[in-house]
Parts: sequence; structure tokens; C-alpha cells
Amino acid sequence: MNLKRYAILPLGFQANGITAGIKKSGKADLALFYSELPALTSCRFTTNKILAAPVQFDKLRLKKNKSFRAIIANSGNANCFTGEAGLKDCLKSAQILSQCLGVSKDEILVASTGIIGKRLPIEKIVKAVPELVSGLSLKGIDKAEAAIRTTDTFAKKVSVRFAIDKKTVTICGVAKGAGMIAPDMATLLAFIFTDAKIAQKAMDKALTKAVDDSFNSITVDGCMSTNDSVMLLANKACGNSLIKDGADFNLFRKALSIVCLELAKMIVRDAEGASKFIEINVGGAKSAKDAKKAAFSIANSALFKTAMFASSKNILGRIAASVGASGADLEEKNLKIRYTPLHKKDVIINVSIGKGKSNAVIFTSDLTYKYVKINAAYN
Amino acid sequence: MNLKRYAILPLGFQANGITAGIKKSGKADLALFYSELPALTSCRFTTNKILAAPVQFDKLRLKKNKSFRAIIANSGNANCFTGEAGLKDCLKSAQILSQCLGVSKDEILVASTGIIGKRLPIEKIVKAVPELVSGLSLKGIDKAEAAIRTTDTFAKKVSVRFAIDKKTVTICGVAKGAGMIAPDMATLLAFIFTDAKIAQKAMDKALTKAVDDSFNSITVDGCMSTNDSVMLLANKACGNSLIKDGADFNLFRKALSIVCLELAKMIVRDAEGASKFIEINVGGAKSAKDAKKAAFSIANSALFKTAMFASSKNILGRIAASVGASGADLEEKNLKIRYTPLHKKDVIINVSIGKGKSNAVIFTSDLTYKYVKINAAYN
Repeated sequence: MNLKRYAILPLGFQANGITAGIKKSGKADLALFYSELPALTSCRFTTNKILAAPVQFDKLRLKKNKSFRAIIANSGNANCFTGEAGLKDCLKSAQILSQCLGVSKDEILVASTGIIGKRLPIEKIVKAVPELVSGLSLKGIDKAEAAIRTTDTFAKKVSVRFAIDKKTVTICGVAKGAGMIAPDMATLLAFIFTDAKIAQKAMDKALTKAVDDSFNSITVDGCMSTNDSVMLLANKACGNSLIKDGADFNLFRKALSIVCLELAKMIVRDAEGASKFIEINVGGAKSAKDAKKAAFSIANSALFKTAMFASSKNILGRIAASVGASGADLEEKNLKIRYTPLHKKDVIINVSIGKGKSNAVIFTSDLTYKYVKINAAYN
Repeated sequence: MNLKRYAILPLGFQANGITAGIKKSGKADLALFYSELPALTSCRFTTNKILAAPVQFDKLRLKKNKSFRAIIANSGNANCFTGEAGLKDCLKSAQILSQCLGVSKDEILVASTGIIGKRLPIEKIVKAVPELVSGLSLKGIDKAEAAIRTTDTFAKKVSVRFAIDKKTVTICGVAKGAGMIAPDMATLLAFIFTDAKIAQKAMDKALTKAVDDSFNSITVDGCMSTNDSVMLLANKACGNSLIKDGADFNLFRKALSIVCLELAKMIVRDAEGASKFIEINVGGAKSAKDAKKAAFSIANSALFKTAMFASSKNILGRIAASVGASGADLEEKNLKIRYTPLHKKDVIINVSIGKGKSNAVIFTSDLTYKYVKINAAYN
């Protein structure tokens, strides 16, 4: 399996990213991902009860249709808490895009990230779509990636290649993260493309597993977003025989998991203001749920995170108190806590609960002055 | 009802606070609260599964005994995650105190706050106890209050007086808070004394209600402590007829609730690094549980707290996203959010869920550079 930390769009995909004027900064803020062939699609969305309009829109589309041609995504405005008007704006952008691309509006997905509670400047998007479409290219993936960023400071792109039936399958993913990252995905957008031919059921299964072990196993600030979306499009362009189960499925699942995990780790590394990358392993839990509870309780503790920032020797107490508060079944006498040197940029925390055989691994960052500064300034 | 924001010890109580050398700073760190008469006692403790040794110790004592004479409390060391040795240290301090006071060791409660995971310097405490006892006085309550502080920057003391049978009943409380303040009480110690004569059942009931509406309705950083203890001692010294129910009970309950709420609000005002005092009202929830869930989800959101620090206009989105993530039953179209001007020190947030008739009020602070600084430096 060949892993690259840059984007290689699979066969039959094109992309583009431009400035539509949604962001005050004048930076790129409108991205388009396009498949020349109808692409089978699998998505995972936030479980927040306040769903951004694009998430509501996509969920409705996915009930009717499993094959898509394009995703239009904007940064700078989340189009959330915008009611019926927000949904109409989604429809408008799908309509104009369907005209320019010559595909059905039912084959278009939308995504947004940015400020909540403000109407999308839809006229700017409508005006920008022709340019967005005419600039589509294979290399446009880098521009598209840049256009979905908010407070991200570096690009999050991964490509994996492997062979099935002597055909080269490519899986390529781009993501944005930075803040508001927590279980059930947070303000995270990830768009993943493959030229593999795969059955819907197999694709859904592979994505669920990959997301659970990656995007749902990271936390920056414990805040769950209204806009999180992970979308996987498979357009069959590479000509492999259908992936359904067995060795081919396992290979695809593994490759997809690598793409998701690499993107998720990059998101934690680029967490707002973060100075450390922390891996938390909880073992010996009574259940997988308990293990995840305990790991997230540590990772989301403001006291743990500030102690990590300071490489404080008080860290033991912070870990013990947050595991104790997690609700996981445990007793003090069986609790074992170890960690690698705190002054390094990468730290591994190992917690053993001594109650059973379940474990969890999650990734997080520290809480720094800079986190407060970035979020205080985010207007 | 006469409320004072200073401490007036009820009849028959004395207190003292000295420097035993537990804190490196040389500040006062050992407090004693003493009742000349056996005092009926009611306590509430943290629900963290890692219980500090003094909490374990007190819980065992309270199973055997409901009448106490003294509380010894130290700051600078939490005596937590210290195993059997920690429990022995509690017993040792109770033993030496019982000798010096001439009371049974079964009539002594202990409390600690400070660093987790280190043995209590018990020899320093043993050495300091004679001086602690010999200095007991009515006015010593101010010294005792000073000796329980950790990162607290001001004193938290409240006294309430009211009449029952023409007798003046006094309820006096002191508390420490500052960081690690969250539901189920956080690193919070509160010691409340009254000279009222009250039935055990009535006392327990009044304390439970008062704590739920005060110490369990505040959050600074969502971190639950291992040491939280609220203790109420009633020594009957004022000579009223037994309070059991009816108007007398209601009066007592109301007075106790005022004491607890005033102390809890002071803790939020003195939250580590806080620049704002925020009241969050959630109404129209399907159940009281939902209302509290939604209110705490807002209050514990790092993004909400930094936006409050910045008086950011993005606050609406932060509130909507955290209510949506809370798990409370709601729909976007019925959600109403209002707030008082954000640039003021005191801000009130009103959220209406539109699902039912239950409500909750909770108090919190913002997240500032200073919070990170204080906790990064806490070694």
C-alpha cells in the first residue's frame, strides 16, 4: 500500500477552488469536487440536533439517491441556524451548479463551514459558480482543499494506492478541521474520492469503521459541530471487478481507514493553538464504551489539557480525576497510569483500568493561550 | 432574613487556621472548625469514582455516626490517589486532633484540597495540631477560611440570621473554589454551621435541595474533583424547638439555600482567570434533566466560553451548537436564544427550547488567557 501526504485525484475526478467573497479576508472560500461518472456515495454526518442546512439538505437527497456527480462546499459561513431560508440557499446553489455542469440537481451534495446563524451570501455563490466550473481540473484538488479551510494552518491531504485485479485503485481524501473537533465529528469536513468499483453495503461498512476509528476518535475542545460531514464517492473508473467482501474488501477497508486516520491525526496536529499531539490509550475497560468514555473524559478535561501544555508534573492527578469522573466502571486500586516524557511534542498516555479487556485509542491536543486567542478573535 | 457577606459563627462554634507548611508558599494551609456541643451532621460529596482519602474516610465515619465535634481541613495537598496510606494519614490526623480536643476520634471529619497523587505530609500536620487547637476562637473563622484556599483570590463567607420561637438562628458558611468546578461539586469545599436544633431528616432534605440549586448548578471548566465536600453541622446551641417540617422547616431551608447559593456564586465570580459572570437560563425543556443538560452543555463549551471572553457576536452560533449537542430533545424551529449586552461583566443568557415546561438556571464564567496561565503554572 502506497501512502502519500498529497492529493492524487482518482481517475474521472476533477476539482477547483476559488474566492467567491464569502470570507472577508479574500481567501479562497468556494470548492467544487466533480466526478465525470456517476459516483456511488456514502456519508456520515454530525449527530448534533441543530443540523446545518447543508446537512439537512444532503440527508434528504441521500434518502432518494445514492449516486452523485458533485459536491459544492464553502467556508466562511456555516449556513446553520438559518431555518427554511438556509435550505432554499442550498437548493439554489445546487440548481445553478446543475445547470453549469449539465447534471441533475439531485446529483449534487452541498457542505458549509464557518460562522453559525447568518444567511449564506447566495448571490455571491451563484455569481461564482460558472468560474468554479470552468476551472475544473485534475490538479484543482489543491485549490479545492485550500477553499474549505477556516482556521486551518496547513493542508490536510492523503492519497493511498493499491492493486486489485492488477488495476491500480486510488483513494484520495482532503479535510478541514482546526477547532470544534469532538466525537461525532465536530466542524470537520472530509471529502474522499476513489475510482474503485464497490458495492454500496461494503462501502457503507468500510466508511463506518474508518470514521469510528479516526474522526470519531479525536477531540480538540469537546465541542460538537452542526456541520460535520464525511463524504465518500466511488466512481468505478479504474475498472476493477466489484468489491463486495473477502480479501478485496479488507484491502479497501484498510486503505480507507488509513486515509481517514491520517486526515484525523493531521486535524489534531493542526488543532487551534495546539503545541502537543497526545495519544491516549485506555485498556482493561469493562466495555468498549467504558474505554472510550474514560479516554474522552481525559482528553476533554480543560485541567488535563492545560497541564499538558505546561508539561506539569500534576498530570497524574488530572488523569486520575478525569478517569474517575468519566462514569466508567473502575476502582482506584486497579488504576494504572503511565506516560512518555511530557516535555516532548508527541506524548503517549497509557491508562489501564483493570476491569476487563476492552480498549480505546483517541487523539487530542493541549489547551494553550493561543486556543483562547484564536477563538476569542473568531468573529 | 438578615444576610451578611462575612462570617458570624453560630453559638457554640470556634475555628482557627494556621500555616503547617503543606503549601510551599508559606500561606495558611490547615483549618479547624470545632463545636463545643455534639453537632448533628449532613454531608454531600463528589460522585467522582476516584475518591480522595478524606472523602472515603468521612463516608465510613458517617455510616456509623451522625454527630460530630470537629472538621480538620488542609489545602495544598488533596490526599487523593494515595491508596491505603492516604486513609492511614486521615486516621492519624483524626487521632492527634481527638487527643488535643478531648473528643472521640469518631467525632472528627477531615477534608483536603490541592495536588493529587502525593502523600500528605502528615508529620507536619501532627506537629501543627496543638497550636491549631490552642488558637481556637469565635473570630478564628476568618483564619480558617483563609487556610482552605488554593487559587482563590478572595474570601467566600456568608452568614444568615432569622428568628424561630423568638430565638435567633444563625447559619454561617465558608467555601473554597476557584478551578475544577463542575456539576457534582468540583474542587469545592464548603463548611456550614448552624446553632439551630433540627431533625436529621429535615437537615438532609434541606441540604440536598440547597446543594442541587447552588454547588451543583455551577461550572467553571467542567472538571469534576475527587475531593468535593459540603458539610453542614447543627449543634442546637440557640435553643429553638426542634425544626421538623412546616413553616420553620421552610424558613430554615430557604436560609440554607441562600447561604449555599451565595457561596456558589462567589466561587463562579472567583473562577480561575474569569472576566465574566454568566447566568444561563434554559426554559421550555421537556424535563428538568433536559434543561440542566442543555444549560451545562452551553456552560461547558470551550467555544462558548472563549466567545464570551471576547464578547463575540458569534455567540449565537456557539449557543445553538452546544444546545444541539447536549442530547436534550429539541428542534431548531422552536429554539429561541436571547442575551443581555455581552460587553458587560454580568451577562444573562436565556434559551427557550419550546418542548415543555421544565427549566434550569446555572452559573458559569468565561475562558480566558488567565485560566490557561493559572492552570499551566499549577505545579
